[in-house]
Amino acid sequence: MAATPLLFAASERFVVPRLQEPAKRAYDAIQDDGAPVIICGFGRVGQIVGRVLRMRGIAFTALEQDTEQVEVIRRFGSKVYYGNPSRPDLLRAAGAEHARLLVVALDDMEQTLRVVEVARRTFPQLRVLARARNRRHAHLLMDRGVDRLVRETFHSSLRLSEMALEDLGVPSDEARQAVAFFRDYDEKNLIESHAFYEDERQLIQGAKQAAEELSGLFEADQRERQARPVRGRGR
Amino acid sequence: MAATPLLFAASERFVVPRLQEPAKRAYDAIQDDGAPVIICGFGRVGQIVGRVLRMRGIAFTALEQDTEQVEVIRRFGSKVYYGNPSRPDLLRAAGAEHARLLVVALDDMEQTLRVVEVARRTFPQLRVLARARNRRHAHLLMDRGVDRLVRETFHSSLRLSEMALEDLGVPSDEARQAVAFFRDYDEKNLIESHAFYEDERQLIQGAKQAAEELSGLFEADQRERQARPVRGRGR
Repeated sequence: MAATPLLFAASERFVVPRLQEPAKRAYDAIQDDGAPVIICGFGRVGQIVGRVLRMRGIAFTALEQDTEQVEVIRRFGSKVYYGNPSRPDLLRAAGAEHARLLVVALDDMEQTLRVVEVARRTFPQLRVLARARNRRHAHLLMDRGVDRLVRETFHSSLRLSEMALEDLGVPSDEARQAVAFFRDYDEKNLIESHAFYEDERQLIQGAKQAAEELSGLFEADQRERQARPVRGRGR
Repeated sequence: MAATPLLFAASERFVVPRLQEPAKRAYDAIQDDGAPVIICGFGRVGQIVGRVLRMRGIAFTALEQDTEQVEVIRRFGSKVYYGNPSRPDLLRAAGAEHARLLVVALDDMEQTLRVVEVARRTFPQLRVLARARNRRHAHLLMDRGVDRLVRETFHSSLRLSEMALEDLGVPSDEARQAVAFFRDYDEKNLIESHAFYEDERQLIQGAKQAAEELSGLFEADQRERQARPVRGRGR
C-alpha cells in the first residue's frame, strides 16, 4: 500500500484529465476533413465514444483542452486536437458548420453548459448530445436545449445494482428486468422533475414520493408479467 | 449565465459529495438490523444501488463519510449512517460479519482500495463489488481480490455512443448491437491487460492493437450475423 500514491500519480498521468493551470501553448491548427462528428473532451467518456465510432468506421474530430491529456492520447495512437471547445471559432475550425453531431463529453459542468449554448446559438443545424454530471446538471442542460444527454455515472450505477441483485441470488434475467424497470422510471422522473428543479421543497417531496411508489409499481409490473401467458422479455 | 456559479454552489450542496476537511463530529452509532447488504459511499452511485434494492424490498445499511451529504440524504428521506467505511470496527458495527454483500461505491480511489483490502482480510465471507474510476483503478482492485467491479463512467459512455450512432442514422437495433459488441470486447480486454498494466509500453501497444483489430472483428461479426438464417438478438 505504501506505493499507492505513486501508482496513482502515474495513473492520473495516464488516463485522467487533471485539474491544472491552463497551458500557455497555442491551440492546434485544426484540419477540417469533413468528419460528421465533433467530440469535445477526450477523457474517459469521449474516448469510448471515439472508439465506438472508429469501430463503425465513422470519422470524428476530437478536441481536448488538457495538454498533458493530449500528449498521452497521442502516444496511445489517437488523433486529437488541443483546443478550447467553448470558443465558436474553434468549433467552426473543427467543421461545426457542416458536421451532423456534437458530442459534449467534458468533465467540467459549467463549460459543458457553455459549449451547448454556443453550439445552439451558432450552429443550429448541429445535433447536440451531452454528458451530465447529475440530475441538476441534466436539468440545466435541458434549459439550454440539448438534444439528448446521459448522466455520467447513471448507467454504471445500474450495472452495479444488477450485479448486486445477482450476487444476492436474483436470477440474471430478473435482475436485468428490475434494473431496466428502474431505469425507465427514473428517466421519466428526470424529465418530469425538470418542471420544478429550482424548488428544493418540491424536489424533496418528489424524491420521497418516487421512493414510495417505485416498489409498488415494480410489484404491479411483476404481477402483470407473471400473469401473461408468454413472458415478456426485459430489454 | 451570470447566475451559474451560484446555481452550481447550490447544486453541489444538493447532490454531490464535496471535498472538504474531515468533520470533527463523532461517527454515528450504527444499529445492525441484519441487512444483507452494506453500501459504502452514498453519493451518485451508492444511492442508485440503494434505490434499486429498496424497490426490490432488500434491506441495506449505508455508510457515508461526508457529513453534509449525510444531512442532505436524510432530508430526502433516506437512512444513512455517518462513518468511515475503511475502519474495520465500523464495518463490523454495520454487520459485516453476517452480511452477504459489500458494495463499495466511494468516489475516492485510494479509499476504495483500502476498504476492499480491509473487507477481504477481515470479513472473508463477504462478496465485494466496487466502483472503479478507470482501467488502472480496475486493475488495482483486481489485485486486491475484488469479486466484481464497474468502471464508473463506462456504461454511460456506451449509452452516449449508442445515442450518437442513432443520431447519425444507424437503426436502434444495430446501434445497440454495435455497442454491446464493443462492451464485451473491452471488458475482455480489461481482464487480459491486467497481466501487464504496470508496463506502459505494452499498454500502449495493446491499445493500438485493440483499435486496429476492433473494426475488423466487428465487421466479421456483422457478416456472420447477416449470414445466419434467423438473425441473432443483441443483448
